[in-house]
Amino acid sequence: MIVTRSIKKTSQICARCNSKDKTIGFVPTMGALHEGHMSLVKRARKECGFVVVSIFLNPIQFGPSEDLARYPRNFKKDEKLLKASGADLLFYPEASAMYPQGFSTYVEEFDLSKELCGKSRPGHFRGVCTVLAKLFNIVKPDIAYFGQKDYQQTQIVKKMVRDLNYDIRIKMLSTIREKDKLAMSSRNTYLSLKERKESSCLYRALIFAKELIRKGERDPKKVIAKMRGVVKSEKTTKIDYIGIVNADSLERINKIKGRILITVAVYVGKARLIDNIVLHVKK
Amino acid sequence: MIVTRSIKKTSQICARCNSKDKTIGFVPTMGALHEGHMSLVKRARKECGFVVVSIFLNPIQFGPSEDLARYPRNFKKDEKLLKASGADLLFYPEASAMYPQGFSTYVEEFDLSKELCGKSRPGHFRGVCTVLAKLFNIVKPDIAYFGQKDYQQTQIVKKMVRDLNYDIRIKMLSTIREKDKLAMSSRNTYLSLKERKESSCLYRALIFAKELIRKGERDPKKVIAKMRGVVKSEKTTKIDYIGIVNADSLERINKIKGRILITVAVYVGKARLIDNIVLHVKK
Repeated sequence: MIVTRSIKKTSQICARCNSKDKTIGFVPTMGALHEGHMSLVKRARKECGFVVVSIFLNPIQFGPSEDLARYPRNFKKDEKLLKASGADLLFYPEASAMYPQGFSTYVEEFDLSKELCGKSRPGHFRGVCTVLAKLFNIVKPDIAYFGQKDYQQTQIVKKMVRDLNYDIRIKMLSTIREKDKLAMSSRNTYLSLKERKESSCLYRALIFAKELIRKGERDPKKVIAKMRGVVKSEKTTKIDYIGIVNADSLERINKIKGRILITVAVYVGKARLIDNIVLHVKK
Repeated sequence: MIVTRSIKKTSQICARCNSKDKTIGFVPTMGALHEGHMSLVKRARKECGFVVVSIFLNPIQFGPSEDLARYPRNFKKDEKLLKASGADLLFYPEASAMYPQGFSTYVEEFDLSKELCGKSRPGHFRGVCTVLAKLFNIVKPDIAYFGQKDYQQTQIVKKMVRDLNYDIRIKMLSTIREKDKLAMSSRNTYLSLKERKESSCLYRALIFAKELIRKGERDPKKVIAKMRGVVKSEKTTKIDYIGIVNADSLERINKIKGRILITVAVYVGKARLIDNIVLHVKK
């Protein structure tokens, strides 16, 4: 595995792959890798001739009061995991190289970014789109892989790719979960033992909603109220949002029907956790 | 010369050139081609293995009260000129293909875009950056060519390319001028005979400034005042701005020194014309 901080070197290696018609699979990450990330790398390894993983803790997607400073970092462990996974190139640029003095160009999506995490975290998706535009231009991948836990992000990236004519296929793979079904996340390391136990309520709320809908409930307000109950029954939780939206447009719906996304963002202690499920509701 | 409206076809042809290591030279235009454009195509032909010219009247770079509707169009003549020039591919996409319903992603540069034309034409450079990001992703050029008449635009594009890590060299070629030194522009066709005659005052003002500076004047305010006099001596002119700025940062300067840009934007009748010169002022 090639390991490099150099933007130029990465760009050149990937350009060479392109001119050899080698399919480039790309997994952009912020490090602190877990099984969720590794499932993306594994899939990329299976489908592509050359697998690039980036580790970059992107400062511009964090708000001023968010957790950039304490976000978990463990480069040596990440590097080892990636070597074992058969990735071909690990790109971990420096922030000062990605955003040199005077950096002034941003990419922003203005529709799918409005609600949910976009509302709670102003500027977050602008930071995500900007860094991905940069990484896409450096790596020039054929396929880029994202996890469903970040459903809204993945939809926004798909939109950006379509709008800006990037010739890249975006693939979204299933959320990988702990034994108690908590979605894997680098932020889970923030949780105390008690909080860790309580945090399974996100998934329990989602499954409770699924069950209510299976039984015939079609009013999103009623479902959300019940979900709130599930989350609030845990002591250290604070709900950021619970949403039931159209899975494509991410717009709030008045009646549960079609392909819908049920999505939650909850503070458990200091950790802001997100999770979601997609349902196809026939009638 | 391949002539196509298809984004997909253009993207595929250009990808094939890349995988054959054929250098792609790209000249993005809004059509109504004149000698200025053709000098760019000629240079691209000289320097590159494959020359792509785009003709796209980009709606999102025009303000609501600007001249999109009456902007000159002459596709048949343009096509003929390009065929004769030896261009390899003419790409002229439809607006509905470039901006389909629900388009929602924009690229914006926030530093060099603030002043001069950026101030007079809010949203203009956002439209320029967005369409060029799209065209760059479709054409994947090695070199893209711009004219010095659009100096600010070219600087912004250079900044965008650097900030977003596009692997593209931006070349700025000299402004091509009419006999009376009026900078060539598709918008010159708006001018009546009388206005056409008066419009040479833009260049006369620039040269007057150059002469003042040669004689030792170092106060931009005084130079600008004299330039105003030159432009105002013509009846149908209305000054949008006259600026003397650092040629790299595009910031206003208090003392004329170093590499400076002297730039003018003037309404002559209904036509908004721009022009500029760059000077190296040693001391």
